[in-house]
Amino acid sequence: MNVTAAQLEEQLAAILRAWGSREADIGPTARVLVSADLRGIESHGTTMMSLYDEHRRSGKVKMDRDITVVRESPVTALVDGGGGLGHAPGVRAMDLAIAKCKTSGLAAVAVRNSNHYGAAGVYAMMAAEQGLIGLSTTSTHTPSVVPTFSRVSMLGTHPIAFAAPAKRNRAFVLDMATSTVAVGKLKIAAMQRKPVPEGWALDPQGKPATDPVKGLEYRRMTPLGGSRAQGSHKGYGLAAMVEILSSLIPGAATPALHDADAPVNVGHFFMAIDPKAFRGEGEFEAQLDELIDTLHAAPRSDPAQPVLVAGDPEAACEDERKKNGIPLYSDQVELLQRLARESGAPFLLVN
Amino acid sequence: MNVTAAQLEEQLAAILRAWGSREADIGPTARVLVSADLRGIESHGTTMMSLYDEHRRSGKVKMDRDITVVRESPVTALVDGGGGLGHAPGVRAMDLAIAKCKTSGLAAVAVRNSNHYGAAGVYAMMAAEQGLIGLSTTSTHTPSVVPTFSRVSMLGTHPIAFAAPAKRNRAFVLDMATSTVAVGKLKIAAMQRKPVPEGWALDPQGKPATDPVKGLEYRRMTPLGGSRAQGSHKGYGLAAMVEILSSLIPGAATPALHDADAPVNVGHFFMAIDPKAFRGEGEFEAQLDELIDTLHAAPRSDPAQPVLVAGDPEAACEDERKKNGIPLYSDQVELLQRLARESGAPFLLVN
Repeated sequence: MNVTAAQLEEQLAAILRAWGSREADIGPTARVLVSADLRGIESHGTTMMSLYDEHRRSGKVKMDRDITVVRESPVTALVDGGGGLGHAPGVRAMDLAIAKCKTSGLAAVAVRNSNHYGAAGVYAMMAAEQGLIGLSTTSTHTPSVVPTFSRVSMLGTHPIAFAAPAKRNRAFVLDMATSTVAVGKLKIAAMQRKPVPEGWALDPQGKPATDPVKGLEYRRMTPLGGSRAQGSHKGYGLAAMVEILSSLIPGAATPALHDADAPVNVGHFFMAIDPKAFRGEGEFEAQLDELIDTLHAAPRSDPAQPVLVAGDPEAACEDERKKNGIPLYSDQVELLQRLARESGAPFLLVN
Repeated sequence: MNVTAAQLEEQLAAILRAWGSREADIGPTARVLVSADLRGIESHGTTMMSLYDEHRRSGKVKMDRDITVVRESPVTALVDGGGGLGHAPGVRAMDLAIAKCKTSGLAAVAVRNSNHYGAAGVYAMMAAEQGLIGLSTTSTHTPSVVPTFSRVSMLGTHPIAFAAPAKRNRAFVLDMATSTVAVGKLKIAAMQRKPVPEGWALDPQGKPATDPVKGLEYRRMTPLGGSRAQGSHKGYGLAAMVEILSSLIPGAATPALHDADAPVNVGHFFMAIDPKAFRGEGEFEAQLDELIDTLHAAPRSDPAQPVLVAGDPEAACEDERKKNGIPLYSDQVELLQRLARESGAPFLLVN
């Protein structure tokens, strides 16, 4: 099935409404999810509704909640997500950071008492769309990354997203988990019945796990680098940095110490930097264009494979899907049909 | 030879003075360099004086220069390093970020027209010593990192340093190049006549280079991750992010576009965040202590190898060297003797 972004947003909104989500939360939540689907980051789009439904049913996540600004200064704020999904407080926090940054040149907003917020890159891009440099990081609910020299998951996949505005080119958009690969890569390998390379996942002894089915069961991903010799202590350090920014600054839970059955208390961190606080108008964007052009023109290792810049594949996907629609796979359609049926929401999608 | 930090600072100061460095620059430069030697980061301490001497002689770096604050707001500033070494403008910029952050909760200062500034972690730690979270990044003069899918170095080793204050524990101090390994690791392997693992360095076709002698000649390091399958596009993205922060925000040169014979124009970026802008006094530090303790207690993969937290090895080295002195290897002693002799500075070190 092929649907437009507007159709998919309307469908997600109908289910969120039936779940008891407040009107003010529905729009941002559906938009952030569909942004991920548009950009080809399916793991963080519509399919996440399945986990949200589980959390909602188990009481770990509230659909009816207040989003409040707990503390505020001209350049900082602390937002409380009221124990609900992360998208609406995420958008509120990034909007706040953008507004403060436009006045002061720099701003940071942290969020506590939140939950999964979709794709981190969507928030960083909000700043870039306003001519600002944007940063967003989030902690995660479940430990799934093993520190170097350990054999147990203590940290989350803890992503870093960073976006910067260009002029001729698309914005630079880095959106990366600090693990070597996402857990989803094991799922794909398991479906294809293929072993995964050493350096992606570990077994309970801390040795490489190459069987993706067992890897999924163990849930012990490596930090970026994969092994000590290849720099996994750097990926581990970055994951800990993200946890400090996202959980410790706002006072949210850390995955290693959080009771899996307790209400979710994920934290996020957002920052905006105005290049005009440092340079004349347009100078930053012109130099970024020059850098992006230079990287695109870099000599290729494989003549058939151009050198890319962060965000290129997602931007190309977004262009294509805005034109031709978002392809929904049968399991996504079935998920939406089930969630609509179970919640009493209308099923709105037709081919 | 074993010397105290004070002795080594005095020796470096004498050479810098003979080189024509201004009095105000000498103290910060010597202190930053000796901090690296104390912490066991020899690659970024005394041995760097050899490169500084080359740059000074070739006119790429000025010893007599002004450090000026070009633009300033309550939470941002742009500093011009006047074409000299990076340590003194780096310290000035981080001090400025710390002062602004103590007033406003958040501050960022960028530096242009600078040069090598020693170990990035030293600046991040300055913030942590004042109870603030510190970030420092720098671009580098020479391209030495190959973008994913390319076969030519376009970016520098572009480090990220991040420090956060704890209470019972030492500060969390991440200080990492965004390449898989530092160029220095090839030098060590070359001396030991050992091949290096695939994933560290590339040859001119973009294939793994395992001969360290050839690897040094090629100077084509991989971004963290090492290969596309192991996530090198993430390390590449982080290196580009560091270049955006360090070079594009202040308007410094980018390694790929900079004429190697032109005066050096390296850029740096510094940020400070006050946890008290978000949480009650001491709450952040208490939670960081809890996180550090939890990571230290994580089950070990090898019973003999404890799980470490970023900054642990360097802090242990600093303790030991503050007590027993800094060991200077014969080539470091010979370097200092030569630089003293050639500049007319006194040689002050005795065993």
